[in-house]
Amino acid sequence: MAPFERHVFVCTNQRPADHPRGCCNPDASDALQKAFKKALAERGLGRRVRANKSGCLDQCEHGPTVVVYPDGVWYGGVTGADVAEIVDRHLAGGEPVARLRLADDCVNTATCAHRPRS
Amino acid sequence: MAPFERHVFVCTNQRPADHPRGCCNPDASDALQKAFKKALAERGLGRRVRANKSGCLDQCEHGPTVVVYPDGVWYGGVTGADVAEIVDRHLAGGEPVARLRLADDCVNTATCAHRPRS
Repeated sequence: MAPFERHVFVCTNQRPADHPRGCCNPDASDALQKAFKKALAERGLGRRVRANKSGCLDQCEHGPTVVVYPDGVWYGGVTGADVAEIVDRHLAGGEPVARLRLADDCVNTATCAHRPRS
Repeated sequence: MAPFERHVFVCTNQRPADHPRGCCNPDASDALQKAFKKALAERGLGRRVRANKSGCLDQCEHGPTVVVYPDGVWYGGVTGADVAEIVDRHLAGGEPVARLRLADDCVNTATCAHRPRS
């Protein structure tokens, strides 16, 4: 079987609740990664697309953070309510979900003005 | 700053020592991921290429496993002695290290005949 068509990395890093950079997985439940995995399995996509746990993706201020490869599409502020849309539109359909995308100049910088953590 | 030019995911999943699928990080030290991170920093590549901890990449029989995106290049049986070559040749130079690559038909399958775990 060929490698995954898409490989989704969901930040499951944990930090103390009062950490200034925030935390993508504050209750340590890995709930977001599990929701992606479940949604993919329900659609029969589990062998074509993998939803992986990831260590810190270093985009903490925009978290919870998800990155989709090989597309190189970064999502920020992702919640369980967004999972079905990302799976159906992007992971299955190939069209990134614009409303959740992080702009290129918001990724790989310690701070940015566009999506500050409230 | 733009997203990472390359994003390296190093499996740091842990399993019991006697697990039949093996384990990419048996001593729980994350030593391989740390070696990538250190090598990148030493070469001034730390902001261009990220060496990330990853949950199980599900290619356990070929472990320790590393995948490089957006290239979609999978490496198996990676040790600390391989890190400098992968960093210099592939992550900095753009040329995958052929001797460590997993063939496409060895990825995303439970077993394959080409690189069985001894």
